[in-house]
Amino acid sequence: MRTIVKNGNVITSNDEFRGDILIENGKITGIGSFVPGEGDQVIDAAGRYVFPGGVDQHTHFSALCNSGDKDTAGYESTDAVIVGGTTTIVDYAPQDPGKGLLDSIDYRINVRAKGKTCVDYTLHAMITDIMDCIFEEVKDLPKNGISSIKCFMAYKDSPLHVDDGTLYKILRNSRDVGVTVFVHGENGELIDRFQRDCVKAGHIEPKYHAVSRPPFVEGEGTARAIYLANKAGTPLYVAHVTCQDAIDEIVKARGRNQRVMGETCTHYLTVTKKALENEDFLEASKYVCSPALRDEAELENLWNALNDGTLNAIVSDHCGIDLEMKKQGLESFTLIPNGSPGAGDRIHVIWAKGVMTGKITKQKFVQLIATNPAKINGIYPQKGDIVIGADADLVIFDPDYRGEIRWADCPNGVDYNVYEGEPLLGRVDTVLLRGEVVVENAKFVGQYGQGRFIPAKPYAAAYVGL
Amino acid sequence: MRTIVKNGNVITSNDEFRGDILIENGKITGIGSFVPGEGDQVIDAAGRYVFPGGVDQHTHFSALCNSGDKDTAGYESTDAVIVGGTTTIVDYAPQDPGKGLLDSIDYRINVRAKGKTCVDYTLHAMITDIMDCIFEEVKDLPKNGISSIKCFMAYKDSPLHVDDGTLYKILRNSRDVGVTVFVHGENGELIDRFQRDCVKAGHIEPKYHAVSRPPFVEGEGTARAIYLANKAGTPLYVAHVTCQDAIDEIVKARGRNQRVMGETCTHYLTVTKKALENEDFLEASKYVCSPALRDEAELENLWNALNDGTLNAIVSDHCGIDLEMKKQGLESFTLIPNGSPGAGDRIHVIWAKGVMTGKITKQKFVQLIATNPAKINGIYPQKGDIVIGADADLVIFDPDYRGEIRWADCPNGVDYNVYEGEPLLGRVDTVLLRGEVVVENAKFVGQYGQGRFIPAKPYAAAYVGL
Amino acid sequence: MRTIVKNGNVITSNDEFRGDILIENGKITGIGSFVPGEGDQVIDAAGRYVFPGGVDQHTHFSALCNSGDKDTAGYESTDAVIVGGTTTIVDYAPQDPGKGLLDSIDYRINVRAKGKTCVDYTLHAMITDIMDCIFEEVKDLPKNGISSIKCFMAYKDSPLHVDDGTLYKILRNSRDVGVTVFVHGENGELIDRFQRDCVKAGHIEPKYHAVSRPPFVEGEGTARAIYLANKAGTPLYVAHVTCQDAIDEIVKARGRNQRVMGETCTHYLTVTKKALENEDFLEASKYVCSPALRDEAELENLWNALNDGTLNAIVSDHCGIDLEMKKQGLESFTLIPNGSPGAGDRIHVIWAKGVMTGKITKQKFVQLIATNPAKINGIYPQKGDIVIGADADLVIFDPDYRGEIRWADCPNGVDYNVYEGEPLLGRVDTVLLRGEVVVENAKFVGQYGQGRFIPAKPYAAAYVGL
Amino acid sequence: MRTIVKNGNVITSNDEFRGDILIENGKITGIGSFVPGEGDQVIDAAGRYVFPGGVDQHTHFSALCNSGDKDTAGYESTDAVIVGGTTTIVDYAPQDPGKGLLDSIDYRINVRAKGKTCVDYTLHAMITDIMDCIFEEVKDLPKNGISSIKCFMAYKDSPLHVDDGTLYKILRNSRDVGVTVFVHGENGELIDRFQRDCVKAGHIEPKYHAVSRPPFVEGEGTARAIYLANKAGTPLYVAHVTCQDAIDEIVKARGRNQRVMGETCTHYLTVTKKALENEDFLEASKYVCSPALRDEAELENLWNALNDGTLNAIVSDHCGIDLEMKKQGLESFTLIPNGSPGAGDRIHVIWAKGVMTGKITKQKFVQLIATNPAKINGIYPQKGDIVIGADADLVIFDPDYRGEIRWADCPNGVDYNVYEGEPLLGRVDTVLLRGEVVVENAKFVGQYGQGRFIPAKPYAAAYVGL
Repeated sequence: MRTIVKNGNVITSNDEFRGDILIENGKITGIGSFVPGEGDQVIDAAGRYVFPGGVDQHTHFSALCNSGDKDTAGYESTDAVIVGGTTTIVDYAPQDPGKGLLDSIDYRINVRAKGKTCVDYTLHAMITDIMDCIFEEVKDLPKNGISSIKCFMAYKDSPLHVDDGTLYKILRNSRDVGVTVFVHGENGELIDRFQRDCVKAGHIEPKYHAVSRPPFVEGEGTARAIYLANKAGTPLYVAHVTCQDAIDEIVKARGRNQRVMGETCTHYLTVTKKALENEDFLEASKYVCSPALRDEAELENLWNALNDGTLNAIVSDHCGIDLEMKKQGLESFTLIPNGSPGAGDRIHVIWAKGVMTGKITKQKFVQLIATNPAKINGIYPQKGDIVIGADADLVIFDPDYRGEIRWADCPNGVDYNVYEGEPLLGRVDTVLLRGEVVVENAKFVGQYGQGRFIPAKPYAAAYVGL
Repeated sequence: MRTIVKNGNVITSNDEFRGDILIENGKITGIGSFVPGEGDQVIDAAGRYVFPGGVDQHTHFSALCNSGDKDTAGYESTDAVIVGGTTTIVDYAPQDPGKGLLDSIDYRINVRAKGKTCVDYTLHAMITDIMDCIFEEVKDLPKNGISSIKCFMAYKDSPLHVDDGTLYKILRNSRDVGVTVFVHGENGELIDRFQRDCVKAGHIEPKYHAVSRPPFVEGEGTARAIYLANKAGTPLYVAHVTCQDAIDEIVKARGRNQRVMGETCTHYLTVTKKALENEDFLEASKYVCSPALRDEAELENLWNALNDGTLNAIVSDHCGIDLEMKKQGLESFTLIPNGSPGAGDRIHVIWAKGVMTGKITKQKFVQLIATNPAKINGIYPQKGDIVIGADADLVIFDPDYRGEIRWADCPNGVDYNVYEGEPLLGRVDTVLLRGEVVVENAKFVGQYGQGRFIPAKPYAAAYVGL
Repeated sequence: MRTIVKNGNVITSNDEFRGDILIENGKITGIGSFVPGEGDQVIDAAGRYVFPGGVDQHTHFSALCNSGDKDTAGYESTDAVIVGGTTTIVDYAPQDPGKGLLDSIDYRINVRAKGKTCVDYTLHAMITDIMDCIFEEVKDLPKNGISSIKCFMAYKDSPLHVDDGTLYKILRNSRDVGVTVFVHGENGELIDRFQRDCVKAGHIEPKYHAVSRPPFVEGEGTARAIYLANKAGTPLYVAHVTCQDAIDEIVKARGRNQRVMGETCTHYLTVTKKALENEDFLEASKYVCSPALRDEAELENLWNALNDGTLNAIVSDHCGIDLEMKKQGLESFTLIPNGSPGAGDRIHVIWAKGVMTGKITKQKFVQLIATNPAKINGIYPQKGDIVIGADADLVIFDPDYRGEIRWADCPNGVDYNVYEGEPLLGRVDTVLLRGEVVVENAKFVGQYGQGRFIPAKPYAAAYVGL
Repeated sequence: MRTIVKNGNVITSNDEFRGDILIENGKITGIGSFVPGEGDQVIDAAGRYVFPGGVDQHTHFSALCNSGDKDTAGYESTDAVIVGGTTTIVDYAPQDPGKGLLDSIDYRINVRAKGKTCVDYTLHAMITDIMDCIFEEVKDLPKNGISSIKCFMAYKDSPLHVDDGTLYKILRNSRDVGVTVFVHGENGELIDRFQRDCVKAGHIEPKYHAVSRPPFVEGEGTARAIYLANKAGTPLYVAHVTCQDAIDEIVKARGRNQRVMGETCTHYLTVTKKALENEDFLEASKYVCSPALRDEAELENLWNALNDGTLNAIVSDHCGIDLEMKKQGLESFTLIPNGSPGAGDRIHVIWAKGVMTGKITKQKFVQLIATNPAKINGIYPQKGDIVIGADADLVIFDPDYRGEIRWADCPNGVDYNVYEGEPLLGRVDTVLLRGEVVVENAKFVGQYGQGRFIPAKPYAAAYVGL
């Protein structure tokens, strides 16, 4: 049986035209104009956009590291992700208690995600316990279908923290096998000092989260990661860039031809630190994520950096932390678990705030939310664009829909949505995953567990360019 | 009538697959797999590569500025270009005697090219006479389908020379309307001094051409153009980059987020200045072009700069200067007309020396010889890639062909070919121009005058990125 | 006979104390406290400052190149210079008609200056006619007591203009013998274009002098000179820096450890381009000098650059152009001879506007107006500071004097003073040249022709640091 | 009584001449030529050099932090220092157990140094216990005669280690009062990782000290300190720079006009890491200091950096650690106490290896070993040069002496000298401290406890330039 998505306004990473997409065996096999034959399934996309399913290269399902199976918002909540138009995620795989990188990845795939996940996915290895074995394991990641590893420079004294010596060694070993190193580039020691100073001064409300993590904290961490990557001879990928201080360091690296890339997140592009100033603790705590939200000027800096190519992906950094957990920080912002959900909202928000405002073109939109993340993670061209041979992951998007984001319309596994009430200027109507319709009329009609692990190839875009 | 290019190994700028290209009314209307209907023309591409027709953004048909209609190698010689797989050129339009930019362009289109040209083309305006009118004319280029203008910083005391004041003013006015400024970035005064010193010392042979134009001459000119472009707030495109000195300046500009791009040429990637040391004057004089050929190390520098994105196009800088004209320099290399033919050889040479050696991927090849030049010149997506809606300009390339480049097999309008004897590791077999087969079995079967002027759009890639 | 300058508040480049200076045979032979012996001449300096006689490394006596002996303000007008506290000048020696560098220097010493000059002096060679001989002559400068050469990058199409090829060759040859190359770093082609545009628009008043020479014109020239000096492997000295654009280039050069130094002038530190806006042509024309006067913000930039060491000397750029000559520009600012007098006012103005305002310390003052210029020109420690063995060139300065600068009090060879009416917050009272009192009560009491040529040593501060 | 040092070849920071130095009341009151009066003490310096007593801005008397009074080599061993021609030290004052900065300084002055020290001295505050009080105490340092503070970035997990948050806060508070922040700029986390890797691999010999601290470890620490200083708006002083990686960072800082200075040490200029490869543990362990000794090429880099002004002082980093203590590292190089003696040898070694080889001039020598350190530490012009009013701290140096350095000739408080056997090409013969002869015939003839605390002024050279 063939499926034809008919008469859509197709947007790819490098083109836009009215036409059909032909699908056979879950793959895109034709682009142009096709006469349906007998038995062919026809999906009418007239008056709607058709673009590749989103790839979100930065999610945390579940948010809790070392949390065993008691997720507050695990892989089963990816139903909201695919309803939001994202068909593939690159999820972070923290080390499980006592486990090395490879076992933890295996555990993620075979225990955590299995039977639950609604989107296709690949994984970033993620250091959360500096065991001796991890340095050799890095070299085996590609054989296991993993092409990247994440190191946290922040979170001093927490198991998440990766010291510079470990980072350097990971960089060296990664280089030998083409693994891409992602860093959370905040300086943990500066934060620690600023947090103590805040607390000592009785400044314990959520808004001090931003005060204790000023932009240069991220600038320094980024500078240092770039320095070490340069000495190691390894490309670098900077996660969730939020400010000009960090952008500057990436631009400077380009000025000596060092390979450094970076992403930003939906919320850094659209929400400011004013959200943290809400006097209602719970309202404010929803926006506690790291790096912290910035001021208005940085929003523009980030859009510019996306347009000039310094940054090359928009991600959600989705963390399913519910309000009950946020309450841990009632006595001090330093105890609020960091992170907010958003994987299901990314495409809607970026369309409304980026494409509809004219900040980015529709082609750039596709590149930032799908094509580039696929290239960066070694899963292109299987994922990320509408090309012959690719998986038929397609979004059919109704540009005329008007409404607003409501948690109730699409529960995301936790009890709030940070974009609640934001306007929808168009909406994901239908989603195909590998040729199957899994979202219809903006409702999930697929099956839990339909998502597959997609092996990632090493020497991806950080090594060879986009 | 539909045409189907069947079963080729299709290479696009971002994909590679086995399949068919469907053509209707000269446009690509389908990509995938198509069952020929009655009356459909089928071109069997099995076992062969199919890639977009080449775009050569730097040609001089004819080579002579202000030469009236007595070309040694005018647009009629573009038959050799299309046989070489290039279906579109961006030709330089020097000012004709007493004419401004716009009249000269009009003259090029309606007198010079008309009825002769075998490839589609657009034009760069080109200053060869600093008349007062040109500054305002720049602003009218886009309305006339022209999106770029060339300024020569070299050639002191010649009408070609554009002084810094003129360059700056052209940059400013170009910026206001999205015109892309191309510079020949050599310092004319340094060359003048070095030439005098050579001649004074009795060093008059062709090899002194390179001696009198060392790499830093190009480095300085490039640095200065970048400085002025920065102050003008205008993107810059650096023509025919040949050396690390110039690459360094472009990289530095990226390090402050200034928009600067550059191209290199087939010959700078594959031939060294040894060619100038031939004791036979005529043999050596064939290789007198500007900037001069460099030493071995620069070849690698240039391939690296292409791969890391600092340079983004490979061009021919085709000049149809025959040997009779080269003889003008018998008494001094300074009198040898600069330039060599090569538009017909570009694709063959880059395939053999770039793709077959593993220096660049097949996707990079398509980007460098077709997609990027189309984007840089505002004629994408009409030209430069295989996408729905594009002109059906296609090359069918036989990868198994083995032979060598012979002038006699494809005369190029002048009486020599600088690549004579170079191996062919594959060959352009068939070429379609807007859906019509115009090259078959490596022979031109089209019509002189078949080429059309393609209006270029302003605010092209130098402004918005590739 | 010994001379003792007694009880002064002595300011040297690195110290300040109350004490005596002992002089024997025109040299400083003692510093401290000396009991006058019989026959000793005692000069009471109690209550006054004693500092080294000023060294002005940038003067044009006479202003006119190739003017033969008909100076408007030749060396005889250096009486006003020494009354102003400057005991040594480094005068520019343009090539006289048909003469090479060495003959012109000889002519300056033996004809122009002889019997007239009131200050000691050395000379900068200065290219005003690019004859073939000058390249070899550069190498002989040190043997002739000359350690520096000036090249004008501005003044396109005038004999003053030095093209880049000539500049590069001069740099190379200078390097071999330790000659310091001074550049006037303005881009002549940009100025030419902007001047034409002004004139064409009917903008012919003096204020358009500044409009036609915006700061980036100087920035580009400085950048280019630095580029060429870097490639030549030669230190560089940038004359009369006026703006942040030029400062930036020097700072960047330091960031790659290239040896580049620069000076600024009294007027760029204290007068703005408002002076050019005077509707009285003659009033405005007095301030026509090159580079042009800048806006208020640049004053602060220059003081900062002096304090952070980017710039290291304050000079007058004295040109004795009288009003009759300025009138040549009545029909267009482009015809106004460039330059203003000021060698006699430098020390008074910098004391009042620099030291008394707290912008610079007294030690810095001595360094900028005496010590550094002596080091830069290879005449230290004979000149420029109060050290044992140095020439006894001393200024005795009355800090309590209050008055204002009046041309009538000290005619400077031309018929105006650009600092007319500026406050005197202290005044040069007595000056000793080689131990002889030549200024007393602020009046010249020496002899015309008392000044001597001081041979300069090569490999001066631009090569070895201050 | 007056003292006259007669007929010496006087070398100052900016001059050289034959003459006398007149001393009254411990101060220099005359320079030149003086006829001894009755009762005047005359010291004949004919045939010898006279230069200012050395200032060593980096010593550790005693080496042990928190060691109570059980020094292995305390202030009483400064007899060897003054015999070596250094009359003033700037000693590091670590925090004593449970004490803040100010109490520790007080304790140093009044308990440790009192009655013992043979040289004049001032102190650097030094953080060895991050107590809350230190941040406010920094602001009170100037009132207490202290103008600088040292922060160790290395030594992870030791009390010496200063984290980035603390460093930043110290920088901010220092800025407000003109305190100069000195950093030990090695990355402690990288070292920690490399040390573990060495030990794990069984690499425990002293030579692995250098392996575990490669140059980029210092480059990164320096880069980070510079980043934080830039954000804090505070000048920075980098202690013991050893390699081009660190020099590069300082040069880059100058390229954006950031105030950063640095010193190097005698041993980094003259000894290579080969010294660590000695198979005799005790021989090798003598050379275990941090940063580690480097390879041959870095020696030249450091001399160059001194000559071009990037580095501006040569210090000893004297640590009096005896061999018994070094034996703590027999089982692993990581346990060897870091540091070597050398304050008494600095001047002899730099004269022989720097001046006599022509690497530096005699003026540069004086600047590097005396004048600059005095300026950097706010004790100029009282110390560091021969100027009127300065303390009469003078070295009379016999340039004709030939011999070699022998521990036995001048015991330094520990049981070895790392320069044992190095040639003496000239020798300190006589030393005056505040006018008193305290070294005669190269023997200490002064009194223990003669040294005085010299209050240092804030806003020293790191703030205002040399």
